[in-house]
Amino acid sequence: MTMTKGGAEDKQKWVYAFGVNGTEGGADMRDLLGGKGANLAEMSRLGLPVPPGLTITAETCIHYTSNANTFPSDLDKQLRHALAGIEETFGARFGDAETPLLLSVRSGARASMPGMMDTVLNLGLNDATVEGLARQSGDARFAYDSYRRFIQMYADVVLGVDYHHFSDLLEEYKEDNGLTLDTELGAEDWKTLVGAFEAKVIEELGSPFPQDPVEQLWGAIGAVFASWMNQRAITYRQLHGLPDDWGTAVNVQAMVFGNMGEDSATGVCFTRNPSTGENQFYGEYLINAQGEDVVAGIRTPQPLTIADKAASHSTMLALEEVMPEVFAELVKVRDRLEAHYKDMQDLEFTIQQGKLWMLQTRAGKRTTPAALKLAVDMVGEGLIDKAEAVRRIDPARLDQLLHPTLDPDAEHHILGRGLPASPGAASGKVVFTAAAAETWAGKGEKVILVRRETSPEDIGGMHVAEGILTVRGGMTSHAAVVARGMGTPCVAGAGELRVDAEAKELSADDEVIKEGDVITIDGAKGEVMLGRVPTIKPEMTGDFATLMEWVDAIRTMEVRANAETPLDAQTARDFGAEGIGLSRTEHMFFDADRILHMRQVILAHDEEERRIPLAKLLPYQRQDFIELFTIMDGLPVTIRLLDPPLHEFLPHTDDELAEIATAAGTDVETVKARADQLREVNPMLGHRGCRLGITYPEISEMQARAIFEAAAEVTKAGKGVMPEVMIPLVAVKRELDVLTDLVRRVAEEVMDETGIRFEYMVGTMIELPRAVLIAGDIAETAEFFSFGTNDLTQTTYGLSRDDAGSFIEIYRQKGVIENDPFVTLDVEGVGELVRIAVERGRARRPNLELGICGEHGGDPASIHFCQKVGLDYVSCSPYRVPIARLAAAQAALGVEAEINA
Amino acid sequence: MTMTKGGAEDKQKWVYAFGVNGTEGGADMRDLLGGKGANLAEMSRLGLPVPPGLTITAETCIHYTSNANTFPSDLDKQLRHALAGIEETFGARFGDAETPLLLSVRSGARASMPGMMDTVLNLGLNDATVEGLARQSGDARFAYDSYRRFIQMYADVVLGVDYHHFSDLLEEYKEDNGLTLDTELGAEDWKTLVGAFEAKVIEELGSPFPQDPVEQLWGAIGAVFASWMNQRAITYRQLHGLPDDWGTAVNVQAMVFGNMGEDSATGVCFTRNPSTGENQFYGEYLINAQGEDVVAGIRTPQPLTIADKAASHSTMLALEEVMPEVFAELVKVRDRLEAHYKDMQDLEFTIQQGKLWMLQTRAGKRTTPAALKLAVDMVGEGLIDKAEAVRRIDPARLDQLLHPTLDPDAEHHILGRGLPASPGAASGKVVFTAAAAETWAGKGEKVILVRRETSPEDIGGMHVAEGILTVRGGMTSHAAVVARGMGTPCVAGAGELRVDAEAKELSADDEVIKEGDVITIDGAKGEVMLGRVPTIKPEMTGDFATLMEWVDAIRTMEVRANAETPLDAQTARDFGAEGIGLSRTEHMFFDADRILHMRQVILAHDEEERRIPLAKLLPYQRQDFIELFTIMDGLPVTIRLLDPPLHEFLPHTDDELAEIATAAGTDVETVKARADQLREVNPMLGHRGCRLGITYPEISEMQARAIFEAAAEVTKAGKGVMPEVMIPLVAVKRELDVLTDLVRRVAEEVMDETGIRFEYMVGTMIELPRAVLIAGDIAETAEFFSFGTNDLTQTTYGLSRDDAGSFIEIYRQKGVIENDPFVTLDVEGVGELVRIAVERGRARRPNLELGICGEHGGDPASIHFCQKVGLDYVSCSPYRVPIARLAAAQAALGVEAEINA
Repeated sequence: MTMTKGGAEDKQKWVYAFGVNGTEGGADMRDLLGGKGANLAEMSRLGLPVPPGLTITAETCIHYTSNANTFPSDLDKQLRHALAGIEETFGARFGDAETPLLLSVRSGARASMPGMMDTVLNLGLNDATVEGLARQSGDARFAYDSYRRFIQMYADVVLGVDYHHFSDLLEEYKEDNGLTLDTELGAEDWKTLVGAFEAKVIEELGSPFPQDPVEQLWGAIGAVFASWMNQRAITYRQLHGLPDDWGTAVNVQAMVFGNMGEDSATGVCFTRNPSTGENQFYGEYLINAQGEDVVAGIRTPQPLTIADKAASHSTMLALEEVMPEVFAELVKVRDRLEAHYKDMQDLEFTIQQGKLWMLQTRAGKRTTPAALKLAVDMVGEGLIDKAEAVRRIDPARLDQLLHPTLDPDAEHHILGRGLPASPGAASGKVVFTAAAAETWAGKGEKVILVRRETSPEDIGGMHVAEGILTVRGGMTSHAAVVARGMGTPCVAGAGELRVDAEAKELSADDEVIKEGDVITIDGAKGEVMLGRVPTIKPEMTGDFATLMEWVDAIRTMEVRANAETPLDAQTARDFGAEGIGLSRTEHMFFDADRILHMRQVILAHDEEERRIPLAKLLPYQRQDFIELFTIMDGLPVTIRLLDPPLHEFLPHTDDELAEIATAAGTDVETVKARADQLREVNPMLGHRGCRLGITYPEISEMQARAIFEAAAEVTKAGKGVMPEVMIPLVAVKRELDVLTDLVRRVAEEVMDETGIRFEYMVGTMIELPRAVLIAGDIAETAEFFSFGTNDLTQTTYGLSRDDAGSFIEIYRQKGVIENDPFVTLDVEGVGELVRIAVERGRARRPNLELGICGEHGGDPASIHFCQKVGLDYVSCSPYRVPIARLAAAQAALGVEAEINA
Repeated sequence: MTMTKGGAEDKQKWVYAFGVNGTEGGADMRDLLGGKGANLAEMSRLGLPVPPGLTITAETCIHYTSNANTFPSDLDKQLRHALAGIEETFGARFGDAETPLLLSVRSGARASMPGMMDTVLNLGLNDATVEGLARQSGDARFAYDSYRRFIQMYADVVLGVDYHHFSDLLEEYKEDNGLTLDTELGAEDWKTLVGAFEAKVIEELGSPFPQDPVEQLWGAIGAVFASWMNQRAITYRQLHGLPDDWGTAVNVQAMVFGNMGEDSATGVCFTRNPSTGENQFYGEYLINAQGEDVVAGIRTPQPLTIADKAASHSTMLALEEVMPEVFAELVKVRDRLEAHYKDMQDLEFTIQQGKLWMLQTRAGKRTTPAALKLAVDMVGEGLIDKAEAVRRIDPARLDQLLHPTLDPDAEHHILGRGLPASPGAASGKVVFTAAAAETWAGKGEKVILVRRETSPEDIGGMHVAEGILTVRGGMTSHAAVVARGMGTPCVAGAGELRVDAEAKELSADDEVIKEGDVITIDGAKGEVMLGRVPTIKPEMTGDFATLMEWVDAIRTMEVRANAETPLDAQTARDFGAEGIGLSRTEHMFFDADRILHMRQVILAHDEEERRIPLAKLLPYQRQDFIELFTIMDGLPVTIRLLDPPLHEFLPHTDDELAEIATAAGTDVETVKARADQLREVNPMLGHRGCRLGITYPEISEMQARAIFEAAAEVTKAGKGVMPEVMIPLVAVKRELDVLTDLVRRVAEEVMDETGIRFEYMVGTMIELPRAVLIAGDIAETAEFFSFGTNDLTQTTYGLSRDDAGSFIEIYRQKGVIENDPFVTLDVEGVGELVRIAVERGRARRPNLELGICGEHGGDPASIHFCQKVGLDYVSCSPYRVPIARLAAAQAALGVEAEINA
């Protein structure tokens, strides 16, 4: 043991006792004592039977790791003092050969990091105390088995002698003595092995296994602290976004044994059913076993209650039958803990020779339906209020309620993995082109569209597919964005798979899937499976509806949806959207009967020639808007003018080029030349957005006319309309001014022509850093800002979402970034720009409407940011609307809490 | 005449008299009186013979155009008062039939807008005053010719009766009377025509030609004001970046006539020779002629001086001979004006019946060599100081001194036009591939490399070409940037031309140029010409060197160069660069003997396999740096680690792919698959910059080793070295930290291995908006920032410089933007980001070194901004170093002036 020389830290309290008279910690000291330590102290305060122990604080760990692995000088004194309390309470003495106190030494950080750090059990055993344990338990086999386990564990964790040395010795011994199972070894066998283990330690280290229990204890504490900084733990924290400077606490606790005979047992239980949320006590236990045995699954555990036993048609005895008194005590513990924590708890207990000991309590993990039921029931029971119920549900997990999921019991063969791009599971026959998807679907086949990557011209095939699989692209690739918008399961960027569209083959490592073969994809996990794997349909229970009512009452931000088709719009409303925050008009140009006109627009030589096909597109667009306005019935509908570069509307194959040439009355060479002329090196930064409107104002004019003629018609039909015309990709104020003038002029024309007046707004997307910088000026013209955080992230980072896939994962693994900025808004960079734009925009126009329509609008963490920065609404894909509503409510609660704090 | 009703403006002074007792204006009132009016007033103050007149202020014009074409109510009174002064001074009365005062009414804005606005001469003539003029001049033909000209001009400009009506009448009259030339018409003929003209006005307008001179005057003034807002003038101002709200002044001045007989004359002259700058009086004149006649070039003008006459072997009499006394007076005027304005002046004069009148003075336009000579001479003469000499030279025009230019007298046939991407003129045989360029050049041929667009693999061919022509790309396309860096003439984005590389054809409208045909390009004008057009070699005179000495004494910013080859580095030093601000290491990988290793790096499967070809590249890179360090001899050399996406190093043709496959010991399919895998949708936003270093640290390691081993070797050879290692495309601090640690580790290793210590710095390029936002944090690690304003502009605007060409010109034409942001730094957007980064960076690290290495580093306007924002240096292509030095000096003077103001 190395101690730091005295100093300020000597005044600090490093050790907190529990399970003794005057427990010093509590559940509110999680940051200092870790989750486990804080809850042990809390249970002890509640008077529950907790084996006495002490918690060494997480601050001690930080002191240790940042002072070259030395302990604070005062720790020794504090530790000895607490240890004396344990001895007194438990009636045993650490290192005493007669009534030896044995200890467990366990890590316990602020957040659970299962299996990441080290644990030592049975500490305090040595050649003398093992005899005392044998006498006390009346079971020498148990004592020597415990001792050899301790040597094995301690040598591995603390002394760095590899585990396999000892298991090898055990195997040799069994071979030499004709034994097969560990259970066949008796006390003498274990005793012999203890000797062999001790010899092995000397052989490996040149020094004997420490016999001094105090030395053992310091070694174990140091090892646990050091394990905080082992590579496994560091990586885990990086992956889960946990900071290194939290440190871990160490819990040193009197050992109790569930394997001290038939009156001993160990078990785990949940205060309510964690699968369904039903209010029934639920758990498993094993007679004469250690906690590890329950978890390890070597023996089949027995049901806790008679009801459980009946429900699972078990023939094994329930604890309620075997030890009715202890069970009754456990039920009291359950009631006490649930009333106290006001949440479903996950408990661990041990019964040592008829006495119940509580070893752990924590909030129980639960399925999403269970989480909903628990929350709603507990409000009904008066345990929690509605706000707390809303706080309890993880928005991200709502998703599984909204999509089909794989039957967890079904077998499946995984072909490869990609990104979980759009949740839900789906099976179907593989097709390799959008056209094939449409043909096959037309015949009633269920298909999975498999593409290297999708482009807007695939939209028809994407619509009819059950699921979409791409081998390139990231979470915000075209396939991913469109699939989420349509609620279609999608696995994107499955780089392990290869697609050969010409040969019509999808190949995995050693498997080749041909057109028509069936695969299943799980868009929530990013898995691709061979054949049809059964799925389970989602059910939206009454609890869901109840909770969402509370959610809507709490949240202050509006939630809109990104939608362009009537189907999307209707889905969005069904999911509770309060308007459309982004309607991408270009998606309306890809239908078979429209795309040709659009292509004629592109091939035209001048404005006059362009106006002819544009006039043919007008009625289609008008009808689109009539349907959207009618469905949204007076709710705002934000319509973005044509955004993508024109080459996205041109086909790539020679056949299609020929077809267009014929239709346009020109030759293939001319079409190719035009396509070539339009090709761009960096289309994301090219001739798109409002740049199209500036260079081809007649396109914007047609769109504005379609919007306003639709508005007039729907108004005439007696419905409300609120179009918000959005001008994309503004970098310079004059762009916005020119197009706003155009839009307003057309609006006036339509009102004059029809004699019908209607309200509308003109605004812009803020999606370029330059727009942020001049947001004040822009707000003079724009009535609303909608943050296009997809593009804003691309330009702020200089990072193409289509190309980031090749290295973004390496970035996360190496800890260069914490989160994919296309999934969770980058608050430090992109967020600062949003904040600047909000500030400058509102300063110039106080009633400026502010929203977000990037993919982040459906991400809970990003929604929290939107609330903080004062946006009026978020907009996301229809299937994420419930998630966004919940996240917005939680954000409202969070912000409220901060203000009150 | 319509007057605005009285108000505040009645107190305002609208009219300024000159050429009378108590001239009210002066040269310093240019903004109010326009250039012409201010200088007329100034000459008049100097006591020079200026026909009396008055200037109506530019503010009056603004009042007029912004109040529905009405005059301020007080203008009438002020105008009449000033007119009375003119009458008194000139001894003639406006509208008087005996001694009629005739007036000219001319526009005169703050900046010269030649031919854009309207003028009316001979105003005041009517059926009565024309007789007076005939009597006064003794020349009825002159009087009636003047009158018919006046009617024609006034009817056209003020009354809106088209000019052709009158010229038709004249032609008819000549036909009817068997006359051919105007000079054949006598007084009676003109008188008859005046009648016909007057009748035509009645026919067209239904009302007679105004006989009232005052009505004529108001009409003319209103017409000049209105012409400020005519479409021609608006377009001109947009093209020249002049604001609409300047307005134009109007000069109303007593007419003098150079065509009143043989003792009358008119001429223009320069106080010194505007072509050479030599201190010799220089000009032309015509006897018995009007000013228009000199300019129109109908008659050949006569030389002003006897010396001129001799020099030009003219047989015509010099003014010095014909009118020695008037000439002597003119020489005095010349001396007086040059001493007063302290600059070479461009004068207009008229001699009416033996009396000299000065009609205009202004700073004379001059060639760049003349500008240099004038500035240096005038410092020698004590006329101006060195700072003023430095201020006088337009940095942009220095360029023509540094490159060959086309012989202006040579005939040329223009095939097409593109962007003036890199100055200089060059002729050569057309080749269509970089490989062909190298082959042909190897045989001693001069070639012009013609490509659709260039890519880094063309670098070898670009190096050997005399000139580069591309049909795609903008001012900052790859071709343009590289060509400017190499000082090679380049025309980029010549969209009128088509390139068919397979057929080896370059085609213009009706011309097809094949491989081996000779063309000439003018990179300063962006012109492509058929055949060989003779060029003139640049000469750097002693005046240039003298001026640059003064420049260097004045400027406070350092000027570095962007250079990677020894040739570039040497050129840069010869042009006065004080270091290298950007050495793009990837350019070093394209040599034939290196590219294969680089490709093997790309095709390798893992780090170990990559290290093999990297080890082969190391000696090449080390040698590169040894040469750069040796040439720069202790000056800082900023080296950017590998920046472009890896696919830029892969070839595109099947042959080349096969070659690589063989060399790499794999098959073409594998190479193609890898190339395909590397292909990016938006390479600008892809896997490049420090992202390569994070994912392939062994590449950065090799580069760092090459840099530091070179530093050690040069240090050992007794030379100074100052490498500044630059990490590109940083978006996240951790990227910089990881790579800085790597670089510093390698530096320590090399110092340990060699036992030689040297100084070095590690810093970053600021080229992404996110880097700007976190500049404070970044400065904790970075010792210097270099603003990569090319990429910063791309990301701030969301604008690809490779793709902007298709619409940026339309943007300029439509006035959406004023300047191409890739040429002149966008101060409002990109500039604000630079300012933020400077502020945040310096706040965290006060001695942070700050520079710019984007193309803007060589743009004078941008350099001014760099000075204001406090950068330490600018870096530009070697051929722009003198321009940057001069611009930096002017910026220093400008900023000084502002601070003193």
